Amino acid sequence: MKLNETSLTPLYQQLMEDIKYSIENGKYNYDDKIPTEPELSADYGVSRITVRRAVDELCNEGYLIKKQGKGTFVCKPKLLRKIERSNEVLSFSKACRQNGMKPGARVLDYQISFARLDEQNFFHVDEKTKILYIKRVLTADDTPIMLENNFYVFEKFKFLQDETLENTSLFEVLEKHGLHACKSVKSTLEIVKAESHHARDLDVVIGEPLFYMNVYFGDEADNPVFIGRQYMVGSRYKFNNI
Amino acid sequence: MKLNETSLTPLYQQLMEDIKYSIENGKYNYDDKIPTEPELSADYGVSRITVRRAVDELCNEGYLIKKQGKGTFVCKPKLLRKIERSNEVLSFSKACRQNGMKPGARVLDYQISFARLDEQNFFHVDEKTKILYIKRVLTADDTPIMLENNFYVFEKFKFLQDETLENTSLFEVLEKHGLHACKSVKSTLEIVKAESHHARDLDVVIGEPLFYMNVYFGDEADNPVFIGRQYMVGSRYKFNNI
Repeated sequence: MKLNETSLTPLYQQLMEDIKYSIENGKYNYDDKIPTEPELSADYGVSRITVRRAVDELCNEGYLIKKQGKGTFVCKPKLLRKIERSNEVLSFSKACRQNGMKPGARVLDYQISFARLDEQNFFHVDEKTKILYIKRVLTADDTPIMLENNFYVFEKFKFLQDETLENTSLFEVLEKHGLHACKSVKSTLEIVKAESHHARDLDVVIGEPLFYMNVYFGDEADNPVFIGRQYMVGSRYKFNNI
Repeated sequence: MKLNETSLTPLYQQLMEDIKYSIENGKYNYDDKIPTEPELSADYGVSRITVRRAVDELCNEGYLIKKQGKGTFVCKPKLLRKIERSNEVLSFSKACRQNGMKPGARVLDYQISFARLDEQNFFHVDEKTKILYIKRVLTADDTPIMLENNFYVFEKFKFLQDETLENTSLFEVLEKHGLHACKSVKSTLEIVKAESHHARDLDVVIGEPLFYMNVYFGDEADNPVFIGRQYMVGSRYKFNNI
């Protein structure tokens, strides 16, 4: 495999792309040892400085990890998940299983308060209406991936008090009660930096970038079901609409 | 307007939500001066410490800006853009105009090289096929928002050499030549940190979080059109699928 010396893309970036591509297409699998720097240097016909730079950047980006005295290995893949689309909502548990990872969930907080402005508007209720708030951290193979902050109209969802929400798919619980949160009626997605409470719950450092997704879930007929304000760890999450 | 003292959500966070909501729903508009801290404190019935914390966080998040001796003002809104969906691709220029902002584009780089592995696969070409690479920075009201890295099969797209790509909608140029890049055949979206070259081109500091979107654009019949590897400034960009 030769890199393209006439391209203005630096050789180390071409090498990075090639190694990433080999990982994404299964030439190198999770936990595989990749060839040594001298081997890569010979295979690609580039200097060891170029190889080292490419490998270092791939370590920074979370694709590779160097193990002292053992070599360089392929990291656990980022969780791939479908982008929430208006006609299809994929549950976290399903997304995990599709990635061959074990889904987990822990309840962190549980509150009842009165409906705030955007909740009143979405649920078509007044400010005296009670809202049930449940916060969970969702894990894949025991690594925290997502902080789930869900808001429900208490009267309609008080059955959730009697349900186990630990290590459970919320979508499956709702289905059992005949509630199909199958559509994202509207949603936004942006990047925020982890504040101290996110950092603690998600096991990241303060300031780490997170996806922040605000989703208004509806059923087939666009009736409001619940509101989600979710935070996903940027280094552990990737949207995918293949 | 009273905040909910019985809620376990800290008062400053409730106040933040309320101010954000007022901005998003046009009660406060871009460049409006918001009430002073004593006024907010009286309006919401909370301490000035709570008000200051909420206002400081909103300044950090880019919603508000303090102007020395003048007060606190509403910032320019983040560019709202539809999520790329398999059945609808919205051009950057259109997204800008929908936000009432002036789109701009500057060509930064222009290269021809040989097809790499993923390009060979997507375009169904061999490694001897020439690929045209064009890099532009896209701006909204002259602020850099997105680095556009597009890859085309040179033979089919050499007409781009004769087109003005400065301050032009690429989608409109392609349409003129009968090419409809109307579908994202597959795509991924993740968060990366700005390297020095991104930082320079996008006018951000090194390490700033960016959206990285890799999109394979196709026409109505899913025939390959081009590949995009785009970087958007996290603090200036928000996906929206309302």
